[in-house]
Amino acid sequence: MSVRVGLLGATGAVGQRFVQLLEDHPTFEIAAVTASPESAGKSYRDAAKWRVDTPIPDHVAEMTVRETTPEALPDDLDLLFSSLPSGVGAAVEPELCRAGYVVSSNSSNERMAEDVPLTIPEVNPDHLDLLETQREERGWDGALVKNPNCSTITMVPTLAALDQFGLERVHVATLQAVSGAGYSGVTSMEIIDNVLPHIGGEEAKMETESRKLLGDVENGELSLHDVDVSASCNRVPSLDGHLENVFAELDANPDPEAVHEALESLDGADLPSAPDQPIHVFADPDRPQPRLDRMRGKGMQISAGGLRETAEGVQYNCLAHNTIRGAAGASVLNGELLVEEGWV
Amino acid sequence: MSVRVGLLGATGAVGQRFVQLLEDHPTFEIAAVTASPESAGKSYRDAAKWRVDTPIPDHVAEMTVRETTPEALPDDLDLLFSSLPSGVGAAVEPELCRAGYVVSSNSSNERMAEDVPLTIPEVNPDHLDLLETQREERGWDGALVKNPNCSTITMVPTLAALDQFGLERVHVATLQAVSGAGYSGVTSMEIIDNVLPHIGGEEAKMETESRKLLGDVENGELSLHDVDVSASCNRVPSLDGHLENVFAELDANPDPEAVHEALESLDGADLPSAPDQPIHVFADPDRPQPRLDRMRGKGMQISAGGLRETAEGVQYNCLAHNTIRGAAGASVLNGELLVEEGWV
Amino acid sequence: MSVRVGLLGATGAVGQRFVQLLEDHPTFEIAAVTASPESAGKSYRDAAKWRVDTPIPDHVAEMTVRETTPEALPDDLDLLFSSLPSGVGAAVEPELCRAGYVVSSNSSNERMAEDVPLTIPEVNPDHLDLLETQREERGWDGALVKNPNCSTITMVPTLAALDQFGLERVHVATLQAVSGAGYSGVTSMEIIDNVLPHIGGEEAKMETESRKLLGDVENGELSLHDVDVSASCNRVPSLDGHLENVFAELDANPDPEAVHEALESLDGADLPSAPDQPIHVFADPDRPQPRLDRMRGKGMQISAGGLRETAEGVQYNCLAHNTIRGAAGASVLNGELLVEEGWV
Amino acid sequence: MSVRVGLLGATGAVGQRFVQLLEDHPTFEIAAVTASPESAGKSYRDAAKWRVDTPIPDHVAEMTVRETTPEALPDDLDLLFSSLPSGVGAAVEPELCRAGYVVSSNSSNERMAEDVPLTIPEVNPDHLDLLETQREERGWDGALVKNPNCSTITMVPTLAALDQFGLERVHVATLQAVSGAGYSGVTSMEIIDNVLPHIGGEEAKMETESRKLLGDVENGELSLHDVDVSASCNRVPSLDGHLENVFAELDANPDPEAVHEALESLDGADLPSAPDQPIHVFADPDRPQPRLDRMRGKGMQISAGGLRETAEGVQYNCLAHNTIRGAAGASVLNGELLVEEGWV
Repeated sequence: MSVRVGLLGATGAVGQRFVQLLEDHPTFEIAAVTASPESAGKSYRDAAKWRVDTPIPDHVAEMTVRETTPEALPDDLDLLFSSLPSGVGAAVEPELCRAGYVVSSNSSNERMAEDVPLTIPEVNPDHLDLLETQREERGWDGALVKNPNCSTITMVPTLAALDQFGLERVHVATLQAVSGAGYSGVTSMEIIDNVLPHIGGEEAKMETESRKLLGDVENGELSLHDVDVSASCNRVPSLDGHLENVFAELDANPDPEAVHEALESLDGADLPSAPDQPIHVFADPDRPQPRLDRMRGKGMQISAGGLRETAEGVQYNCLAHNTIRGAAGASVLNGELLVEEGWV
Repeated sequence: MSVRVGLLGATGAVGQRFVQLLEDHPTFEIAAVTASPESAGKSYRDAAKWRVDTPIPDHVAEMTVRETTPEALPDDLDLLFSSLPSGVGAAVEPELCRAGYVVSSNSSNERMAEDVPLTIPEVNPDHLDLLETQREERGWDGALVKNPNCSTITMVPTLAALDQFGLERVHVATLQAVSGAGYSGVTSMEIIDNVLPHIGGEEAKMETESRKLLGDVENGELSLHDVDVSASCNRVPSLDGHLENVFAELDANPDPEAVHEALESLDGADLPSAPDQPIHVFADPDRPQPRLDRMRGKGMQISAGGLRETAEGVQYNCLAHNTIRGAAGASVLNGELLVEEGWV
Repeated sequence: MSVRVGLLGATGAVGQRFVQLLEDHPTFEIAAVTASPESAGKSYRDAAKWRVDTPIPDHVAEMTVRETTPEALPDDLDLLFSSLPSGVGAAVEPELCRAGYVVSSNSSNERMAEDVPLTIPEVNPDHLDLLETQREERGWDGALVKNPNCSTITMVPTLAALDQFGLERVHVATLQAVSGAGYSGVTSMEIIDNVLPHIGGEEAKMETESRKLLGDVENGELSLHDVDVSASCNRVPSLDGHLENVFAELDANPDPEAVHEALESLDGADLPSAPDQPIHVFADPDRPQPRLDRMRGKGMQISAGGLRETAEGVQYNCLAHNTIRGAAGASVLNGELLVEEGWV
Repeated sequence: MSVRVGLLGATGAVGQRFVQLLEDHPTFEIAAVTASPESAGKSYRDAAKWRVDTPIPDHVAEMTVRETTPEALPDDLDLLFSSLPSGVGAAVEPELCRAGYVVSSNSSNERMAEDVPLTIPEVNPDHLDLLETQREERGWDGALVKNPNCSTITMVPTLAALDQFGLERVHVATLQAVSGAGYSGVTSMEIIDNVLPHIGGEEAKMETESRKLLGDVENGELSLHDVDVSASCNRVPSLDGHLENVFAELDANPDPEAVHEALESLDGADLPSAPDQPIHVFADPDRPQPRLDRMRGKGMQISAGGLRETAEGVQYNCLAHNTIRGAAGASVLNGELLVEEGWV
């Protein structure tokens, strides 16, 4: 079986990761690429300033970049992946869903909408049930699924694994790589010999998206998890890989060994791009480190380490590759879930 | 008045900062420098690989480096500053105090000893009262005063300012500069395009030293503050300046404006190297940043910013220059306090 | 005496350096600041995203930013400093000179024009004689003086010092700091764990500007030096300070000691911002280094080191602070020369 | 066919690259690993602080580290690879050759000895003929072959390709990655926001090794090429990949197109680890860049770009992965050549 996919916003940093990840995908085949009106009509090779460390695939390089509108897309696409800027996504994604396309989107618009599944396949695959509500309420033939923000994805699978111990309160500080801001998002003058203590909107995303991801969907209705999350987000001079320091208050007060075991026992998803084991836990407190560990599981495995008991629970570090597991790979995984569940 | 000081461990990264800071000091005058036996007998210029960004002062450059023993030191020194490795400090500082020297030390040995003042002049100058107990119990003619670890100093003045609101619980994550590990402590292969999630012993230092600094001394007896601190310490690729993300639970639940005001109102110390206002608070959430703000108040002022209300209190960021306010400058300030209080 | 100066393009990276350098200037007083039309009407504080490591001077912060046109400027300015983008400079600088303003400009437009002095006070102050020709040919009441590109300034004073040995051929490779590209010129994704082997137009600037700076002006006519320069320009992950590896072929084949002496003997200019000795030479082959040595002479002294004989001459390294000696400071120095020579 | 190899100095940065490169080698099989006496007796996993970005191979991890002496090595090894510190190499490599081992060494000792082949298979495979002379003069049963220094290997294949145009004089400046100095060779305090203009002994290595590599071996006698090379070597804050700016004077004065063609036409070696085409030339002047291009050809292909005509020849940039093509991979390639030519 082959699934013909279109990439919306294909020339940016995350768009290039999509191209790279889909190059050897068993079922997904890139059939169209879109970008901004200025790039439309150019070859992908000319429109994208290719900066990924593997060569640009020839067949994609020669595709003509299209505009991001329902009219400009071919009819025979089975699935769209979107890494559009959120403003553009907010305008065009509903239009595409109305026109019948199924969209797995990394853009931040509508992530918190009550009838839009915000999904990590290993955490809350059942949230796809919201698509029924979505189609009903919005009168769409297509469907819109979101993956969370890169900083949220890094942490939430670990929280999902710990929820069995009664997750009550989370404090988290992030050390985020510059690629999370896009190719030109952080200038060298800003970050050399420095750290930026603020990423606009990021803290709120972590605080709200986590509650939705860990929440329940029953009878097509979403209820948020009541965990209270406080986040502090920082940009550091690493290229890829978000490291996060998590302090989790747990009602059951498990010992670190039980936490270690719980983290490594989170069930994997039976999908082509999913790692067998979603979370690897290091015993060495020096790990995980962004440069050494971000490519575990082809960039799709989350790492944890530095487990320590605290007064009310546990503290630990977690790490994920922000443009693979945290962005393009997250959307691909959701696309695979949509296929698996019959939405595509 | 002139106070003749000796520098113990004068050739290392912190030792060089001492030399730089004391260059234009109104009363302290460097009269002797010591280092390891291999350096003894050399000129300071030859023994120290000078790496500070101001020229090496000529009169210090030409001093002969001495061994770090009571016998090797001149008799007419009024005060010693120590930045010895903690193992060496543990062996030699008591000997020097027994021989009658007053030592203001940055080394980590004995920081938590019950009869050793661990002091920040703006926070707990009254802890010097412990010196009476110290002399009595140890039979010393001299005296030993410590300043806390660089990561602790960055945060504790802010906690002292907030204690009026009922400080109950602190979660803190640090983004620490490489200079905190000494000149050769972090290799370039470890830290370029990377972050290290662990600094050996650092978390315990922050957790225990904070409680001592915020504690009370009455009748020569120390009682620890009962705040519970959980720290997560990271090394990042910046040269100087520790940035910290603090989540403080406060019984009184003040609003951010009251917190802002409290931080800026912490009383300064009336000492030559103390900034008029110990803590500057930025309204801009992008600040403080290590490279832009570490030199505020000649490296002695602490910066804060990013104030936000949380469910149980407040979160904010704070920053200090780790080898000035956090090390050499901290000892100098304690030295000034010792003079002011008549111990020198 | 006070000279009232206007800053054209005052909000950019170089513009901010102008403000910083002029803060304590003995005679120059900032009386007007201009920027792009979008900034006009705002306070300088709001228009400039201040990123220099000293506080923004209050009196400048409160100035209203003007448009960069003759009409928008006050009449009583004695001198203008320009760090406009070269396209804007090309359009507006001639207009201002026609209107009678004397302009000391860092912008690259017209640097190679035959009747525009391209000047480094310690190298070719006599090139100001070209201003007579300029006024005659262009019918201007004002005057336009340029300083060379930052990479050129770093090397040319050393070549001027060596020309006594018969300078014939130069090969030079540069390791240039990111600030040379402006605040947003180099993204972090481009430069972390990397080096860029190309800076558009930079090599040609070094090759042609050097010949003009070392050339002669006689009877109001310029003749270029016949040295042949080949440059290879690279961007590296340092913030400030261009390091250059120079191979100079010298007819007289002097020994390294003579070269050392010649470099240190280049005459200083008797101007307020000029260092007493323009070039400092290190004996230690490890120096100069950008971070350790860029601030020598308040950022105005050039450093050299690593002298070694080659088959046809000598090789050495040189370093200058690219936004002080190489940009804003260079224009200020030319402004001081214009005052000294009676053009202002 | 399987060739049993021993790795001398297997725990260091280059040693780990050997382990990584040999993991999937078609014929070489790691049969023994050695390190310093302190590591001997430990498992490789414990002795090596594994820092390569692929997992440590299990069968090597469990090997017991041996001392680096003939007695400590098993008898049935066919070939030894050496990345010993040069002092240790100088002491032990001759002993091993005397004991009958064939050694392909990356250590710098004896690289310039007249009877020791210094070999790059694509450049001077015929230099292996020196082994006859070596055995005769030294009375060895084994053999010692060297590969050049990492900075030399990056440039010399390009010079070999250009020698057809009459190579007369080379000026080269290098921008070398920190891994070239070993895991702890460059501290973070030295290199963040900085560049080091000196690497001890490196310039002399490039200048002399180049002439040997490009020289002739006839009747067992070596004659050096008479090209004159002047090198200036710098350390920059990149992890892997040496970039070099080359200015080559060529008697025939070819145009850049002919140079481009000549570089891409250098013959490849028919060996398992050799890339089909030794040198790739970029038309884009922005390339090669260390981070983007060091892994071309699994780290074994050299990249060039930025071709420009100069007065006497051509200038260009070249790049190679310094610990693969420039160290471990270079020795492996020489090992393959030794097998191919029947010396193993």
